[in-house]
Amino acid sequence: MEDKRYDGFFYKQGNFSPVKDLLAFEEVLSIAINDVPFTITMRTPGNEVELVRGLLFTEGIYRDLENHPHIENVETNVDGYITKVNVILPEEKLLKSFSGTRNITSVSSCGLCGKTELDELSSDFLTVNEEVLDPTFVEKLFAEMRVHQNAFDQSGGTHAAAAFNFKGELLEVQEDIGRHNAVDKLVGAQLLAGEIARCAESLLLVSGRASFELVQKTIAAGIPILAAVGAPSSLAVELAREAGATLLGFVRDDRFNIHSQPERIQS
Amino acid sequence: MEDKRYDGFFYKQGNFSPVKDLLAFEEVLSIAINDVPFTITMRTPGNEVELVRGLLFTEGIYRDLENHPHIENVETNVDGYITKVNVILPEEKLLKSFSGTRNITSVSSCGLCGKTELDELSSDFLTVNEEVLDPTFVEKLFAEMRVHQNAFDQSGGTHAAAAFNFKGELLEVQEDIGRHNAVDKLVGAQLLAGEIARCAESLLLVSGRASFELVQKTIAAGIPILAAVGAPSSLAVELAREAGATLLGFVRDDRFNIHSQPERIQS
Repeated sequence: MEDKRYDGFFYKQGNFSPVKDLLAFEEVLSIAINDVPFTITMRTPGNEVELVRGLLFTEGIYRDLENHPHIENVETNVDGYITKVNVILPEEKLLKSFSGTRNITSVSSCGLCGKTELDELSSDFLTVNEEVLDPTFVEKLFAEMRVHQNAFDQSGGTHAAAAFNFKGELLEVQEDIGRHNAVDKLVGAQLLAGEIARCAESLLLVSGRASFELVQKTIAAGIPILAAVGAPSSLAVELAREAGATLLGFVRDDRFNIHSQPERIQS
Repeated sequence: MEDKRYDGFFYKQGNFSPVKDLLAFEEVLSIAINDVPFTITMRTPGNEVELVRGLLFTEGIYRDLENHPHIENVETNVDGYITKVNVILPEEKLLKSFSGTRNITSVSSCGLCGKTELDELSSDFLTVNEEVLDPTFVEKLFAEMRVHQNAFDQSGGTHAAAAFNFKGELLEVQEDIGRHNAVDKLVGAQLLAGEIARCAESLLLVSGRASFELVQKTIAAGIPILAAVGAPSSLAVELAREAGATLLGFVRDDRFNIHSQPERIQS
């Protein structure tokens, strides 16, 4: 990522001093499918192919595991960031959550919550797993993800998503100005690596809060446990319970809350 | 707001204890305009009229100050929360950012960034103000807003937006699971009270980070200063500079950063 600093002033107790801030990068990305405008997302540039591949998968637009759609860059802005991509894929493989006449907008901190049909997601994609997670692993995950939050260290303005297997080993970490983008980039990376199956035995840790939409994406990726550093919403808990997913909140250091499916955590 | 508690477990250092959590309320709200589906937002129930009135205004859909559109409740869910509203307004007053064929989705932590034409927003609505703000006022605002964050006290999962005049007096505070919704509720309340003009001499304080979209809404409301408790994004700073708005970041206790238009802060 480019090291672009922004001039400003730091005020403290009556005194001003000039500073040069590294800010979290936010840029617009328009996504078209077969040249039909699909969505606009505000995201941190980088890993566009992973982002788009993951987004189409977690939102139930395109669920083929084998054939990766071709994602072409259509426009780049003056700073060299990609601002528009076009996804080329077989029309017959677009699932019913996509409609060519629907022009949806997903955005930097949330995505397009609530559009996909829950019943479909929860029954088709979340597998029941007999394995249970040692809670002492969870204690270490926050610190482990934190080590990899390079963009956050610089700007304090980005979110992260990290997947760990049940041994507590880091599988993948992604950062973005939006939590849902970080999750999509992570899921897209698993798909492109042919490793999506391992999601069924993994835990997804996200910085910040857990919304309905983050639970939805977690389930769509087949991940049985979502752990959030912040608070979950009411609807996030309700969806997790309905779908049989384990939702952990306020995961920090040696403590966390269990909001649903406690059976997956060894007691 | 209803006091609905969710059963769960608290884990700490090897021990589990049952807890009943108060969670931030997240519910879907579908908004139609003259019976045409317009957008879906994930928000905290309450103040729906303010939310919708503010949303239409800050997104440049309907800018009439005098005639408040009729907002009718169309659907309520089993828990008694409004899930669908229809806005009745004169078609000829819909501005060009609205298209009946466009079905956009705004969501809980961000809204529909980047859709509105910036030039229009920045040149038409932000007034140049000669007044400068005493930075010692800013020191007190965070604590003042914090006192009014009732929902946050309970759940730790909601955002707040508060407007203060240049004497440091609180004009309005709103909470929501999404910052952009809290801002829309606040702006809507000013419009409905016939008090939107005072926004031109006010500062808007938001919990969390400042995105492009929050700056856009601030400008659209004619508010010259946006102060965020968290980090601003690159695009937030760029838009604030372009539009002549003052953007403050990391506003906590006795310190803050000035990212644009420092002239409005007394040095």
